[in-house]
Amino acid sequence: MSYKTVIALDAMGGDNAPSAIVKGAVLAAREDIKIILVGDENKLKTELSQYGMDSSRLSIHHASEVITMDDSPVAAIRSKKDSSMVVGLKLLKEKEVDAFISAGSTGALLAGGTFLVGRARGIERPALAPLIPNIKGFSLLIDCGANMDAKASYLAQFALMGSIYMESIMGIPSPKVGLINVGTENEKGNQLTKEAFSLLEKSDINFIGNIEGRDISMGVADVIVCDAFTGNIILKHTEGLALSLFNIIKEELMNDNLSKIGALLSKSAYKRVKKRFDYTEYGGAPMLGLQGLVVKAHGSSNAKAIQSAIAQAVKFKEEKIVEKIEEKINQKINQ
Amino acid sequence: MSYKTVIALDAMGGDNAPSAIVKGAVLAAREDIKIILVGDENKLKTELSQYGMDSSRLSIHHASEVITMDDSPVAAIRSKKDSSMVVGLKLLKEKEVDAFISAGSTGALLAGGTFLVGRARGIERPALAPLIPNIKGFSLLIDCGANMDAKASYLAQFALMGSIYMESIMGIPSPKVGLINVGTENEKGNQLTKEAFSLLEKSDINFIGNIEGRDISMGVADVIVCDAFTGNIILKHTEGLALSLFNIIKEELMNDNLSKIGALLSKSAYKRVKKRFDYTEYGGAPMLGLQGLVVKAHGSSNAKAIQSAIAQAVKFKEEKIVEKIEEKINQKINQ
Repeated sequence: MSYKTVIALDAMGGDNAPSAIVKGAVLAAREDIKIILVGDENKLKTELSQYGMDSSRLSIHHASEVITMDDSPVAAIRSKKDSSMVVGLKLLKEKEVDAFISAGSTGALLAGGTFLVGRARGIERPALAPLIPNIKGFSLLIDCGANMDAKASYLAQFALMGSIYMESIMGIPSPKVGLINVGTENEKGNQLTKEAFSLLEKSDINFIGNIEGRDISMGVADVIVCDAFTGNIILKHTEGLALSLFNIIKEELMNDNLSKIGALLSKSAYKRVKKRFDYTEYGGAPMLGLQGLVVKAHGSSNAKAIQSAIAQAVKFKEEKIVEKIEEKINQKINQ
Repeated sequence: MSYKTVIALDAMGGDNAPSAIVKGAVLAAREDIKIILVGDENKLKTELSQYGMDSSRLSIHHASEVITMDDSPVAAIRSKKDSSMVVGLKLLKEKEVDAFISAGSTGALLAGGTFLVGRARGIERPALAPLIPNIKGFSLLIDCGANMDAKASYLAQFALMGSIYMESIMGIPSPKVGLINVGTENEKGNQLTKEAFSLLEKSDINFIGNIEGRDISMGVADVIVCDAFTGNIILKHTEGLALSLFNIIKEELMNDNLSKIGALLSKSAYKRVKKRFDYTEYGGAPMLGLQGLVVKAHGSSNAKAIQSAIAQAVKFKEEKIVEKIEEKINQKINQ
């Protein structure tokens, strides 16, 4: 039989591989999708044996090697040809699958996504676009990928791809797109953002103009556009600062007995706060602008996060995101 | 009589001017320093009258205009020649004072500092260097100023100036200097950080290498070096994210009765958390690399913050920071 969507999983990537990846696949299994676990056949068979799942919907594609966090990303993609990541990316390139999901090395996945999977027609550079939490929900931060010295035209394409993704996958009509800058006035910024601003102004997305660092967490924009250097630092600073703040609060709450009792009573509030920052709900970071979808799942993904990433990939296929991106990008080019 | 240190204050700048500025000056007044309040003479006389302070130590220098937050920074510096900010900066340029402190428009102060006050000998660009909180204390973030498209050589000078400042003013021996980048490996980054890395590697500061976004709040470095675009976004995102997190926690604590009671009991812990993020303790952000010191105090500075900024300026003079910077920079150049 033929399936509407076929998804390959890097069963060996991430802190909890292969068990969390296999469990996530079992949780996500549906009649109309096929999931291929890429990795060590023996290990995966052992994992799978506990679930008694129909092998037609959940199959194994053997790959003998694993790219680890200690490997140099680009070198590993070139040399470890039988790694679960390279084999999975090649399945995507050859259109055997619609999407490839990995919780392994971000650097290797970016390099592999760029070198092994073809770009969508008209796309200059693919981009990695994680969702980051804000006071209202989440924003898409695009680009956090490998394009270290970006051009304004890349940023304009990122804005468009991010807008399509947030509308079609996250269900936000006419997503607000903001350009990260040092001030909100039109003429602000460095050479890159000044040029990007004038391109974005002319585009037909819902461009709300420049946004500042303090707007990121306020949820001012649904799509936050920046170069990958800036995006990488925003993303990791968000993680680091949130973690530090939680640690500082915990430390102070444990520092006197009354506060300790208070913390105990407030436990359910803290649980709700934590839930608002829970990445496992929304899958992973899509790498946009490729032929098909590559998803970077969080390194510490549990089964639920993998399940969400699979749901995200299914929707990506159903909503024909690659086709939508190509259509919009090439409309622009031909104008 | 002659004073060891003479400091001019923008008495009209900031949300709480002139009352908080005048009160801060009164609190900071000492035998050996002279403080000049720059601004509307009548208003300042009225403010001062309540304190009965000796006018030889606390004097008024009249300026009829005020640069507001709505003014275009560069245009205002050019056109409002009798504004408290322009008059104060000119006192610094003419070496009538050793330092100028303002809680007014950051943009105008950066433009005025650059155009009106001379650069220190050998310095390519002055830099704005706020202290930002981390889990252990504070780091100096340099540059958050006006140099939108930086060169690697600027970053190398920022690292040196930041290192001198943290050692001499904040009392940190051999401060750890980190370069903000997308990864810790030596070869990481964009064109700018790659070039800056190789300059910093050769310098005789305590360069600890590249640091990532998540290291910022961990207190890995005492001096965090970056271009002003990146610095501006880190600084404002830190403010925005901390505020958002506190708001989310507050919201959830008020969301059920048990948590509400818990929050009440933990009140002293929350006070201690807040204190660890209190900017009023350490003065303002120095603009380094000028002939003399310009300090950007927080826009919402209260009297205590102004008092701290004055103490910081006094130490800057006593520790001969301008001379130290010039000596080190020109050693390098002549090598």
